[in-house]
Amino acid sequence: MTSLSDLPIRDDLRGREPYGAPQLDVPVALNTNENPYPPSERLVKALGEAVMDVAGALNRYPDRDAVALRDGLAAFLNADTPGAGLTGRHVWAANGSNEIIQQILQAFGGHGRTALGFEPSYSMHPIITGVTGTRWVNAFRDEDFGLEPEAAVRAVREHRPDVVFLTSPNNPTGTALPLAAIEAVLDAAPGMVVVDEAYAEFRREGTPSALTLLDGHPRLIVTRTMSKAFAMAGTRLGYLAADPAVIDALLLVRLPYHLSAVTQAVARTALEHSVELLGSVGELRRERDAIVGWLRGEGHRVADSDANFVLFGTFPDRRRVWQGMLDRGVLIREVGPPEWLRVSVGTPAEMDAFKTALKAAEAGTEESK
Amino acid sequence: MTSLSDLPIRDDLRGREPYGAPQLDVPVALNTNENPYPPSERLVKALGEAVMDVAGALNRYPDRDAVALRDGLAAFLNADTPGAGLTGRHVWAANGSNEIIQQILQAFGGHGRTALGFEPSYSMHPIITGVTGTRWVNAFRDEDFGLEPEAAVRAVREHRPDVVFLTSPNNPTGTALPLAAIEAVLDAAPGMVVVDEAYAEFRREGTPSALTLLDGHPRLIVTRTMSKAFAMAGTRLGYLAADPAVIDALLLVRLPYHLSAVTQAVARTALEHSVELLGSVGELRRERDAIVGWLRGEGHRVADSDANFVLFGTFPDRRRVWQGMLDRGVLIREVGPPEWLRVSVGTPAEMDAFKTALKAAEAGTEESK
Repeated sequence: MTSLSDLPIRDDLRGREPYGAPQLDVPVALNTNENPYPPSERLVKALGEAVMDVAGALNRYPDRDAVALRDGLAAFLNADTPGAGLTGRHVWAANGSNEIIQQILQAFGGHGRTALGFEPSYSMHPIITGVTGTRWVNAFRDEDFGLEPEAAVRAVREHRPDVVFLTSPNNPTGTALPLAAIEAVLDAAPGMVVVDEAYAEFRREGTPSALTLLDGHPRLIVTRTMSKAFAMAGTRLGYLAADPAVIDALLLVRLPYHLSAVTQAVARTALEHSVELLGSVGELRRERDAIVGWLRGEGHRVADSDANFVLFGTFPDRRRVWQGMLDRGVLIREVGPPEWLRVSVGTPAEMDAFKTALKAAEAGTEESK
Repeated sequence: MTSLSDLPIRDDLRGREPYGAPQLDVPVALNTNENPYPPSERLVKALGEAVMDVAGALNRYPDRDAVALRDGLAAFLNADTPGAGLTGRHVWAANGSNEIIQQILQAFGGHGRTALGFEPSYSMHPIITGVTGTRWVNAFRDEDFGLEPEAAVRAVREHRPDVVFLTSPNNPTGTALPLAAIEAVLDAAPGMVVVDEAYAEFRREGTPSALTLLDGHPRLIVTRTMSKAFAMAGTRLGYLAADPAVIDALLLVRLPYHLSAVTQAVARTALEHSVELLGSVGELRRERDAIVGWLRGEGHRVADSDANFVLFGTFPDRRRVWQGMLDRGVLIREVGPPEWLRVSVGTPAEMDAFKTALKAAEAGTEESK
């Protein structure tokens, strides 16, 4: 039998494992930051009807430029961030924000170029960077997972990266960045600056979006997704807002017809139902703040969170706590800095199950804090 | 206003134009090799219902490994090519065969590596090769667009490519390769050999598929698509068959959750209706053979075709013929070797319109043959 090591794969891939959280069938899945609230019956019906509306022409290729969808996303962002002033020409969409990030690195990275991120952060940034042949450089967040403008600028000046990733709110820590840090990086960076706002809709009152910085910053790219607050992870729709020239650049590397007619129809329909889909965001924020309070009350260290997950610790043997919880039917994520664990915010019942399982796993494993 | 040239894009992208046939709204579109027959009302309904079945869980991520879909595709290939003996472990799927090709180049190509193709052939092969940082080398088909085993082996020995592309039936010429040429390349090639069979279902009786060579050739990859014979271009579903170790390699570069729950559901439903969807293949083959005969009767040179399009010529100024036909509402494709044009096989009414427009455009432009 042939094995992977017998094949002539790229040297930098040898010995690697595929990325991805374990896909386990468990009663309580709090590991991939999904929105726990499913679409309503009304929306399910609307999605099916939207697909029927386009299915009669599925023998034809889709709109390669997804114009109607991009117009809809621009309108959504303008409502999210008053004054953003975006049009469909400022927006680009792809199969998940992973594909958006890959397209950015294909256009602005590649062999001989460098991308910089501030860890701990979203682990797909360095992985996609590597797959596109771009060199990855780690810088680091502060002790409290924030990022001081001075420290960020120092790292940018040292490495002069072609692409900088700033994640706000940050995954897996939940930390939002002040605009001052983003502006300082924009001023110092010689290349593109990507602000990954996958969790932006969960940010606390008064936390601004980097969308407000787009005007006058043609090297800024803000990425978003329908997978988190928008409760459409199964649809795989990521998008970005940027200067139209950035989108002209991505057109040179995008695979033609990358976004199916079905995906475009489903995403447009989801936008039309954004009030329903985002209706759970307030509840999820309250649940998040409650779980932060509960964990702190239990004596844990907890990172401030502007997202729909919470990073907490510390556990000298986090794997045993993670496994102990999984044995009790609650799947969380072993990710981020050593000794920390991440839990997605679920329904109140799921968070009760989380609390019970955590206490039991800790007792069972006699972990110190 | 910022323009593309103001942005720090990769040097090799500077001055490039985005790939893609013009998306024009014309009465008769015969330019992208779509199947002209739309899904039936029964299938449209089934597709909508399939999406409703999964839409209730769209807040969750899809099956990252698309296991059920891959099983269905394997069963389809086993029916297409008796004796292929494939399972879901031999099959991989992505958003169009373009994404399949990109993943292959990401795993087996990249900086410092080379991909070889035999032109004229599918123009996305060199484009995706370039985007992945792989070096592209052209070899050439024979005068009649075929490929002699000896000539193919000579090119492989000279360039020692990491990836070889063989397209059969070839786009834009329609030419199918004999298995002997593919076997000769497999024996000589130091790396992976990709046989792009996007148009395989249209091949004439007795023309074998490279699927029959998979057993014992772990460096062979056969790619297919639902966009052509399968009449599902709008769904964007490409796939491949290969040794399971090849799929292990692609798992290292694929974007996690690249294939949406909706795409998986739509493609599975299409497979269940494959008898309907492929029902037009016989008709399209007959129409193709008729148009080949007609064009030859008109005194044109025409490449033998095992696909759903026909390459014909020669026109010293093909642009004027192309434009003359477009002015008459018939859009064909200006692609392939200079002086040749490509027409997709449409319905009988569309082919009548093609004949009329071609004769009028030739008369109008007084082209010689």
